[in-house]
Amino acid sequence: MIILGIDPGTAIMGYGLIEQKGNTLSALDYSCWRTPAHTPLAERLLMLYENIEPYLRIHTPDHIAVEELFFNRNTTTALAVGHARGVVLLAGAQHGLPIYEYTPLQVKQAVVGYGRAEKNQVQQMVRGLLGLNEIPKPDDTADALAIAICHAHSFALNQRMGDLR
Amino acid sequence: MIILGIDPGTAIMGYGLIEQKGNTLSALDYSCWRTPAHTPLAERLLMLYENIEPYLRIHTPDHIAVEELFFNRNTTTALAVGHARGVVLLAGAQHGLPIYEYTPLQVKQAVVGYGRAEKNQVQQMVRGLLGLNEIPKPDDTADALAIAICHAHSFALNQRMGDLR
Repeated sequence: MIILGIDPGTAIMGYGLIEQKGNTLSALDYSCWRTPAHTPLAERLLMLYENIEPYLRIHTPDHIAVEELFFNRNTTTALAVGHARGVVLLAGAQHGLPIYEYTPLQVKQAVVGYGRAEKNQVQQMVRGLLGLNEIPKPDDTADALAIAICHAHSFALNQRMGDLR
Repeated sequence: MIILGIDPGTAIMGYGLIEQKGNTLSALDYSCWRTPAHTPLAERLLMLYENIEPYLRIHTPDHIAVEELFFNRNTTTALAVGHARGVVLLAGAQHGLPIYEYTPLQVKQAVVGYGRAEKNQVQQMVRGLLGLNEIPKPDDTADALAIAICHAHSFALNQRMGDLR
């Protein structure tokens, strides 16, 4: 299964494409899309859409995993993220892709096994689980990979739970 | 000049298309797009996109006017509106349309001449200014027309101010 994790934002949108084969995870591709500062929001959203839409077409992930919005961040940030998320969800729906959402707590729990883990612990686990030499930069990219890993673990667990019923 | 006013929301998105000729405003078309309850957010955004994108193509407005987000509403509502707004801004940018944003205060000020006007006063003014027999329903449609009127007034005023410089 191929999972695309996305950390949505209007200035930087991190993404991480991972493959799950049995118990093994590997990173296929990861980076981020940036939009220039002082650009109107609508243009930024268009730039992001023009990155993500062809990406989905070319890389054909099976699932998309996106972080749920932080409700404790300041409202302005959350609203900006909301716009960017809207574009991600739209592009996913246009490709008929199932979209899963995880809270930061769920991501930390799934990646580190501890919901209050520090950012650096999460990043070290992302590096280790994917067998990378270095922690992916910027943070948005590492976060996107963490969300993809969280989905890989959660989805596999839910499948197994289903099998036991 | 043809202006499309939009009151963004994921369950109901009101729209109002008006034409400004000199000092006269007329309503060309107004209604709302609804998405079914209990539908995943991504699908709702896709449905809205599939309404608004062809609408822009067919009706070719010159400008789009959208309400700025309420910062005093509850966060959940604001975030949902953020997603819907993202889709509107994206569709507008895809058509190269300039998008203008107005706060509820600016809309009331422009339509009624008083920033703390009641909803019913705004709706009565919308009806009167556009020469309609009845107040447009639902509220989202009336709000979208009010935003379009606000832009017509503000834009005309800014043009005149520009001429005086």
